Amino acid sequence: MIPPLAELLAALTRLPGIGRRSAERIAFFLVAKPEEAKRLSEALTGLPRIGRCPRCGSFSAEGLCPICRDPGRDPTTICVVARPWEVEHLERTGEYRGLYHVLGGLISPSSHVGPEDLHMAQLAERVKNEGTREVILALEPKLEGDLTAMHILRLLKPLGVQVSQIAHGVPVGRDLESADELTLGRALKGRTTL
Amino acid sequence: MIPPLAELLAALTRLPGIGRRSAERIAFFLVAKPEEAKRLSEALTGLPRIGRCPRCGSFSAEGLCPICRDPGRDPTTICVVARPWEVEHLERTGEYRGLYHVLGGLISPSSHVGPEDLHMAQLAERVKNEGTREVILALEPKLEGDLTAMHILRLLKPLGVQVSQIAHGVPVGRDLESADELTLGRALKGRTTL
Repeated sequence: MIPPLAELLAALTRLPGIGRRSAERIAFFLVAKPEEAKRLSEALTGLPRIGRCPRCGSFSAEGLCPICRDPGRDPTTICVVARPWEVEHLERTGEYRGLYHVLGGLISPSSHVGPEDLHMAQLAERVKNEGTREVILALEPKLEGDLTAMHILRLLKPLGVQVSQIAHGVPVGRDLESADELTLGRALKGRTTL
Repeated sequence: MIPPLAELLAALTRLPGIGRRSAERIAFFLVAKPEEAKRLSEALTGLPRIGRCPRCGSFSAEGLCPICRDPGRDPTTICVVARPWEVEHLERTGEYRGLYHVLGGLISPSSHVGPEDLHMAQLAERVKNEGTREVILALEPKLEGDLTAMHILRLLKPLGVQVSQIAHGVPVGRDLESADELTLGRALKGRTTL
């Protein structure tokens, strides 16, 4: 195989979820359509501009992120997530009008990640200084998410702020069989009266 | 979403087989690993160097492709494929030591692609000038591949060259149920005596 093609294939197969076959399909597509290769190449050169918002920790090109800068957002509600891209997922629902706080991970004893490795103190500072009324935890409903939620609850309770958690349950449009036991258990516990 | 991230997602979702979810996963991976983004970006800048071999039509960075330049290949055998990347697929088998000829497509009456739109005349020229003994057709076993094979057979028969076709049948390691009827039909026709 000629070097430029081999290098492209090597770079593509390193991407998550891209196997040898997908990499080839994409490489041959890019060879056949130089304008698409140019577009992707230009998008990649914009990446170094992506930093973090100094207030909430989500993606930001410069200074405060668009959400923190938006005067139309409700500054009394903070939704806590582990990773910056989870902000994008929640934004896509169009259901949330408050602010965010990105922890940068979850408490994980097995990976030696403690509260001091996460943006925990900054969260408490924000609650103290920003007149926060509610903190909504959107953390994954597994051990690490639960540990992190418990820690945040202990940290924020003395500050008199309301702490809530998003509902975990059977995904909309899926049948019960497709949900795992943990999810079904959560769905049962979180049942609402009709 | 901030512009650099939105642009990257837009470029990624245009790639074949990449949906919104995969694009996000790749985008966030590239944001988190700038060295991978740099690698991909550099690989993309090498693409304009990829051209076609003036002799066989497969990918080449300059002049004749590595296969046509390789004195160890058997110059009396030419394997005919429709697209340049099919050369790469066949090379991966490690079973073939001859040369290739890339047609650039298949005869397709419905898409108004005739023999004159393909590198047909060049194939006949090569057979005449290169002392070719065998031409192996590796074309897809469907209508367009069959039409193209028939045309090549008519074109090359007067030149006294042997024309053969790769075997089509049930893929190795698959059970019969997974093969479609057309493939099973081909597999039956192409049976070999044990």
